[in-house]
Amino acid sequence: MTHQEIYFTNEVKNALNTVLSQMDKNYVFVLTDKNVKKAIGEDVIADLVADAKAIIEIEPGDVNKNLETVQLVWSKLQQGGATRKSVMVNFGGGVVTDLGGFAAATFKRGIRFVNVPTTLLSAVDAAVGGKTGVNFNGLKNEIGVFKEAEAVIISTRYLASLPESEIKSGYAEMLKHGLLKSTEAYNRLLQFDFNDNAGSNLLSLLEESVNVKREIVIQDPLEKGLRRALNLGHTAGHAFESMALHKGTPIPHGYAVAWGLVVETVLSHTERQYPSSEVYRLAEYILTHYGAYHITCDDYPALLDYMAHDKKSENGEYNFSLLSSPGNITTGCVVTKEAVEAALDIYRDLMHI
Amino acid sequence: MTHQEIYFTNEVKNALNTVLSQMDKNYVFVLTDKNVKKAIGEDVIADLVADAKAIIEIEPGDVNKNLETVQLVWSKLQQGGATRKSVMVNFGGGVVTDLGGFAAATFKRGIRFVNVPTTLLSAVDAAVGGKTGVNFNGLKNEIGVFKEAEAVIISTRYLASLPESEIKSGYAEMLKHGLLKSTEAYNRLLQFDFNDNAGSNLLSLLEESVNVKREIVIQDPLEKGLRRALNLGHTAGHAFESMALHKGTPIPHGYAVAWGLVVETVLSHTERQYPSSEVYRLAEYILTHYGAYHITCDDYPALLDYMAHDKKSENGEYNFSLLSSPGNITTGCVVTKEAVEAALDIYRDLMHI
Repeated sequence: MTHQEIYFTNEVKNALNTVLSQMDKNYVFVLTDKNVKKAIGEDVIADLVADAKAIIEIEPGDVNKNLETVQLVWSKLQQGGATRKSVMVNFGGGVVTDLGGFAAATFKRGIRFVNVPTTLLSAVDAAVGGKTGVNFNGLKNEIGVFKEAEAVIISTRYLASLPESEIKSGYAEMLKHGLLKSTEAYNRLLQFDFNDNAGSNLLSLLEESVNVKREIVIQDPLEKGLRRALNLGHTAGHAFESMALHKGTPIPHGYAVAWGLVVETVLSHTERQYPSSEVYRLAEYILTHYGAYHITCDDYPALLDYMAHDKKSENGEYNFSLLSSPGNITTGCVVTKEAVEAALDIYRDLMHI
Repeated sequence: MTHQEIYFTNEVKNALNTVLSQMDKNYVFVLTDKNVKKAIGEDVIADLVADAKAIIEIEPGDVNKNLETVQLVWSKLQQGGATRKSVMVNFGGGVVTDLGGFAAATFKRGIRFVNVPTTLLSAVDAAVGGKTGVNFNGLKNEIGVFKEAEAVIISTRYLASLPESEIKSGYAEMLKHGLLKSTEAYNRLLQFDFNDNAGSNLLSLLEESVNVKREIVIQDPLEKGLRRALNLGHTAGHAFESMALHKGTPIPHGYAVAWGLVVETVLSHTERQYPSSEVYRLAEYILTHYGAYHITCDDYPALLDYMAHDKKSENGEYNFSLLSSPGNITTGCVVTKEAVEAALDIYRDLMHI
């Protein structure tokens, strides 16, 4: 995997044009979705790339992150005369960057793409690391490839247009990165003032956070080992997310991760001596900023089943990445069903359920 | 791109089981099509991999090399419980290896696959080199990725069940490889007795031929330069093939390449002093074994248009890989429209049209 350029700047247009001017190319296509267009403005998008061959617009939301939408993108590329020397700029949240990356990676066996994430979640997570993909037959990200963007331009410029829940959703992934990095990085995140989200402080926290992920991905691009550290909070988080989806009351990914982090720091305590004071500190923070996801004992069998069939799990076992302290993670921790159930009990206590 | 293992043997089952036994995996899925099953026998396929989780069967032919079929394969993999540790064995011709490779390369962001080509064309061409893909919106191989099989097992074992036209179709690609390699390699091919197609002589010619392609692909896996040498005969050949398809009278790919080689050796003569005696020798051989593809002056505009819009062409120019002698190729030769028209005139003379 080649080295990917990441720019941290609010001068998005300048950075993008610098990136594009360095590429040997013919046409540039911009991909975005209807929500992004509405929130950020058609004129702003049109102004980004002066000589864009076309602006391709898709329907927003995870429900449209599928093969039908990919086919629409491929058709628009064909209609615009895209060749192997064309470049696509994915301008949007995780759906746009994941789906656009996959569409580009498979068009004529691969054209290059640049990601410009417009949400905190895609900035911190989806736009970096080469995971592209779409949902298929009800399974998330079931179809995709590993292919890195040529460059990613990360800013806080577009975050003001987002609802607070979107910011918090992305912030949960930043908390995860802080926990993976060090006590100091984690402390900086817990001290951050949420109301200052457009400030330069957030951009520097974002840079630190993205670099945590980048360092891990460089060491393990194809998720054979170390990269599973990034799964912290996600085994339980995905279970919450899948169950909520199945019940018809979906929850944002980042909120699911936030609650998943509580469950998995509890497991970290019982399995790897993660300090109980740190478990309490996180649980309080999450409860204050994210509220609680309500579960009862009756939900345990479904949650356990989701966890056992996580994409990263291999043999139907309960497999977690767990901390012994902030900055010290062990991947591939297999725990018993009873331990998971106990962690769910403690989660409910901590969340005052 | 990792190094790909290629086995040349008629002990296919042994080789396949050796390959599979060396892989850390859970389930093996076999992909084939209905024609292959009929020609080679369901029992033979079932016997190949004793503990296959499922044999996935697709409809045969280029007309089914599309996203609908890929979705069927993905669904069957899901139904069979395939995980990232599963392996797919693509057993068939070019449609099975191209489509199966793409389906595997994109399922859960990529599972491993092994190719067992059953036609001469797929053995010599499609199964080696990492090109996977399907047709889309009427364009051939428009969607795909570069991803090599873990291993390819090449034999002449299944060729006896093929019609002669299939053998000749593959043989045209071998002639191309001979022209790229050396006068000696090329001579060996012209001297081969077509009626001995199941013999070991063909297997050794096949090995030499595949190695020509492999050496080029290793040097240029992503088709940035040298690999375009493999395009010899294909710019004109694809034009014949596309025109025939458009007229509703499709011709086999290898036949199109054979006739394309005649056109492009003529161009090699006029542009790069390729010996005229060699042009005559090839034209005679092709006329004897493949007959002629009939074209008139009225077909020239369409043929020229197809050539200018070849996937490997960049700016609507006429771009060829041309020989100065067998073994000496130059890629990226831009020639004039008049030179192409003159070559088509000479092609018609040589083919007695």
